[in-house]
Amino acid sequence: MNTPFPSKPRIAIVGSGALGTYYGARLAKAGFDVHFLVRSGRAAVMARGIRLKTPTERVQLKKVHAYATTEEIGPCDLVIVAVKATANDALAKLLPPLVHAHTVVLTLQNGLGVEEPVAEIVGPQRTAGAICYIGAMRTGPGVVECTFPGLMMIGEFGRPAADRTRAIAAVFNKAGVKCESHDNLEEQRWRKLVWNVPFNGIAIAAGGITTDVIMADEGLRTLARRLMEEIVETAAKFGHQIPRSFMDLQFERTAKTGQYRPSSLVDFQEGRLVELEEIWGEPVRRAKSVGAAVPRLEMLYWLLRHKIATRKGAKKR
Amino acid sequence: MNTPFPSKPRIAIVGSGALGTYYGARLAKAGFDVHFLVRSGRAAVMARGIRLKTPTERVQLKKVHAYATTEEIGPCDLVIVAVKATANDALAKLLPPLVHAHTVVLTLQNGLGVEEPVAEIVGPQRTAGAICYIGAMRTGPGVVECTFPGLMMIGEFGRPAADRTRAIAAVFNKAGVKCESHDNLEEQRWRKLVWNVPFNGIAIAAGGITTDVIMADEGLRTLARRLMEEIVETAAKFGHQIPRSFMDLQFERTAKTGQYRPSSLVDFQEGRLVELEEIWGEPVRRAKSVGAAVPRLEMLYWLLRHKIATRKGAKKR
Repeated sequence: MNTPFPSKPRIAIVGSGALGTYYGARLAKAGFDVHFLVRSGRAAVMARGIRLKTPTERVQLKKVHAYATTEEIGPCDLVIVAVKATANDALAKLLPPLVHAHTVVLTLQNGLGVEEPVAEIVGPQRTAGAICYIGAMRTGPGVVECTFPGLMMIGEFGRPAADRTRAIAAVFNKAGVKCESHDNLEEQRWRKLVWNVPFNGIAIAAGGITTDVIMADEGLRTLARRLMEEIVETAAKFGHQIPRSFMDLQFERTAKTGQYRPSSLVDFQEGRLVELEEIWGEPVRRAKSVGAAVPRLEMLYWLLRHKIATRKGAKKR
Repeated sequence: MNTPFPSKPRIAIVGSGALGTYYGARLAKAGFDVHFLVRSGRAAVMARGIRLKTPTERVQLKKVHAYATTEEIGPCDLVIVAVKATANDALAKLLPPLVHAHTVVLTLQNGLGVEEPVAEIVGPQRTAGAICYIGAMRTGPGVVECTFPGLMMIGEFGRPAADRTRAIAAVFNKAGVKCESHDNLEEQRWRKLVWNVPFNGIAIAAGGITTDVIMADEGLRTLARRLMEEIVETAAKFGHQIPRSFMDLQFERTAKTGQYRPSSLVDFQEGRLVELEEIWGEPVRRAKSVGAAVPRLEMLYWLLRHKIATRKGAKKR
C-alpha cells in the first residue's frame, strides 16, 4: 500500500455495462492504457469503438483494447470492477489473472458488502471501492448515454484513504471524471443507502412508480422518511453519524428531480438483476447484528424479495 | 334495551350483496317476516326470488318482499346492515325510516369502527354488531353461492350482551345460521383482524397472491406473524387479551386452507371497494391513540392506500 501508484497505470475494466464502458472510455480518451473485458458484443466494440453521449459532449474512442478473457489482459495496476454485485460468482475466476503485488482492485458496485467478495479473492490490501453518483445507460455494444456525469467517491476497504487512493482519484480527474477520495468509504455507502433504500425500494414495492409519485403521496413520502431514519440509526450504531439535515437534503433534491425512475426499478422492470441483497438484505443483516430495530426496512426487503423472485421472465440471480 | 325482543320480529335487510341476501333468505325461509332493500336487480329478484347454493343444500325463496326504498319498508324490530362500510354515507338516509323505539340495528360490516357510524344515526342504544365468518359470493341478482356457512358472532355496541342479543342469536339459529352472542364484540373484532390484517393485506401488497403463496415464502410468512403481533399488542392496550395460541391457530388453519384468495384481494382485483379504513386505517389510528408501535401495520396501510387509490378502473370510495 505504500508503494507509489504509477502515474501511467495499466488499467483493466471488468464489465462492459454502462459504468465500465463510460469510465473506461473516459480514461482511454485521456491517454491512459485501458484494457476492456468485453464478453458480449466484443466484435461490435472492436469494429466501431465506443461512443459516449453526455449532456455537453460526444466522445468517440475509435481504438478499443477489448478482450474475451482476463488472462489475455494480464496484470494491471488498477482493476475496475464494473459488473453488478449480482454477478460476483464470476469474479473468483476473472480477477486473479489481473493482479500483481501492488494492484488496486476498485469495485464500483452499489450497496453494502460489495468490497468483501473482492477482498476474499485478491486480499483486503488490494481492495478499494467507489460510489458512483452517475446517470448512464448502455444503449448498445460500446454505446453509452450519460445523462448525469455526477461524482465518484473512492476509498479504501476498511481503512482511511492512502496516497494510492488520492493518486487514483487524480487519474479519474485527469480523465474528466469528477472524483474525490474519502477516508471512510463505509460511511459513504451508508449515506448512499439513505436515498437508495427508500426510493429504489418503494418504487418497486408500490407497483412500479416514479419518485414524483412517492413524493406526492403522503403515506409513501412518510414511509420514505421512516426508512431513512432506520438506515441513519443503524449507521450510527456502526459509528457513522449522518445528520438529519442530510435526510432533509435528500427530500429537497428528490422534490426537484421530477418524474424519476430509480435504477433498481429500471432493472426490475426490464427483467435485469436487482441488487436486492446489497441495497436491502445486507443492511437488514447488519442492523440485526447490532440489535438495531429496522421493522420497515425488513418488511420492504421481504416484499421486494418476493416480487423479484416471482417476477416473470427475469434473469435469475 | 330491557324491552323484550319480539319472538316474531319484523326484519329489514339493508344491502343485497352476498351476506344480506344469504342471511335474509335464510330468515325468510324459516318463516320470519323479512323485508329486503334491493336497489339494483330488484325486478329480477321479485320475478325469480332468491336462490342459495350451499355445500350441503339448495335453498329457494320464491316470494321476496323487495323494496326500492326504506320508507316503503317502514319500522322494523331488527335491521340488518349488510352494505359495505365503504357505503356508509348512504346509511344516514337509509336507516331512519326503519327504526322505532326498540329497534336493534345489527351491522354485519367488517373491521373496526363500523358500529360508530350506525350509532351516530340511530343512537348507541339501538346499535349492535356481528362478525361473520362465512364464505359467500353473489353471482347474480338474488343468487348466492355459499362455500362455507361458518359462524356469526353478535354483540352489543360498547356493552355486554343483553337479553335482546341472545334473542337475536336465537332467531338466527332457528333459521339455520349458527350464531353466538358475545359479551365483548370489540374483542371479537380485534380477533378477526389478527387474520385479516396480515393475510388480506399482504395478498394485495405483494402483488395479488393467494394465502398458500404467503405461507410458502419465509419472509412474507414472518411478516404475517409480525403484523399479527402488532395487532395483538395493540388490542392488549385496549384491554383485550388475545393469547399467542390464537395466532398459532391462525397459521395452522391457513396452512390447511390451500390456495385461498382473501376477500379484500377479491374486492381489489375485481375493482370493488376495499375496506381499507376499517381493516387497516382504523387499527393504525387506534394504536397511535394509545402509543402502541405498529410500524409494519402502518407501512402496510400506506402501501395499500396507494395501491387502491391508483388502481385502474376501480370504483371510488
